[in-house]
Amino acid sequence: MTTLANANANANATVDRDRAEVEHFYARQMTLLDSGEADAWAATFTEDGSFAPPSLPEPVRGRAALAEGARKAFAALAAEGDTHRHWVGMVAVRPGEDGSLVAESYVQVVAVRAGAGPRLHLMCTCTDVFVRQEGELLVRERVVTRDDRR
Amino acid sequence: MTTLANANANANATVDRDRAEVEHFYARQMTLLDSGEADAWAATFTEDGSFAPPSLPEPVRGRAALAEGARKAFAALAAEGDTHRHWVGMVAVRPGEDGSLVAESYVQVVAVRAGAGPRLHLMCTCTDVFVRQEGELLVRERVVTRDDRR
Amino acid sequence: MTTLANANANANATVDRDRAEVEHFYARQMTLLDSGEADAWAATFTEDGSFAPPSLPEPVRGRAALAEGARKAFAALAAEGDTHRHWVGMVAVRPGEDGSLVAESYVQVVAVRAGAGPRLHLMCTCTDVFVRQEGELLVRERVVTRDDRR
Repeated sequence: MTTLANANANANATVDRDRAEVEHFYARQMTLLDSGEADAWAATFTEDGSFAPPSLPEPVRGRAALAEGARKAFAALAAEGDTHRHWVGMVAVRPGEDGSLVAESYVQVVAVRAGAGPRLHLMCTCTDVFVRQEGELLVRERVVTRDDRR
Repeated sequence: MTTLANANANANATVDRDRAEVEHFYARQMTLLDSGEADAWAATFTEDGSFAPPSLPEPVRGRAALAEGARKAFAALAAEGDTHRHWVGMVAVRPGEDGSLVAESYVQVVAVRAGAGPRLHLMCTCTDVFVRQEGELLVRERVVTRDDRR
Repeated sequence: MTTLANANANANATVDRDRAEVEHFYARQMTLLDSGEADAWAATFTEDGSFAPPSLPEPVRGRAALAEGARKAFAALAAEGDTHRHWVGMVAVRPGEDGSLVAESYVQVVAVRAGAGPRLHLMCTCTDVFVRQEGELLVRERVVTRDDRR
């Protein structure tokens, strides 16, 4: 390999490592959301973290508001006997501004009603800006779009 | 970073490496299952490995019984012209007791009938306890739950 | 661990690293395809790269033909208001001939019509032969099979 190729390979190795960490982050974060652990889920965002879901005109901002939204959504599903599973895949990462990390992914939301079969409910894309605080990744900004509303 | 954060980052790197190995394990293991390679699939469990599927009152225990179950299930599907694809995602790992590794994941089972379209058949969660023997990960205990029977 | 087990573990670490890189490759490659960036998508194959899709009697060969095919497919979907999402999972890699890398995976194709819900359109398997050029992975040969036509 040329020196340039070596440099590329090293840069690739770093970004692959970041990607692995982001994937692990998503597995934990989505499990918290789907299990109704709203406060723990909100703590995976920065204190002032924002989440722009496709269903709202304005982003939700800050851990308290994020937790409140997750709690209400989970309670509404539980009242119907429904479980939602957020399934993140096709994760690509790249360096962002100010040392942040940008992750783009596809997200399936699978809905399951107790006693009935599962259903592919939504197909979305997700763009997250991650920052690292005390060694841990946190979401500073999340934007989700629905493919059926493109 | 503080020293504590460095220690966290190192621990994270180890667990991310374990997670990568577990993901690779699942890709191979599920392909064996879906291809009807029942003995090779059973060999991905420990000799006394157990598998508690949602459809049975008691766990299946030991490679011979595991292989027999997989063989029967595959034959029943083949007789109908069906293929099942086990798709594992959202994998999170953590250290277990006695040096084991615990992996929690979501699992989609997609069913495809020859000549017809695919269908999301089941949405499950899977908890595996892995041990390492001669450098290779093996499942010592697997518990699977169906979201529609929660 | 025995020396043999150590050697296995090192070989496993290498292959897990390759697998991580392949996964990242797929995330970027499929996003290009699904976004209609046909030329950039074709550039992820070698100059003479081939793609044998389930819908054609002969493989498509070479970047120009690959780009043309992707462009037409995207335009046909867009004319109907449809988005396709190619979702690769269960990726297993192994060394191939001549220093190549072989990756086998499952692929879901999710179709979304504007204003309607998503639909699991196709369940496929994909076998790719990768080569490395100037440090970057490129697909030299891709074979895709549909589970409903097995």
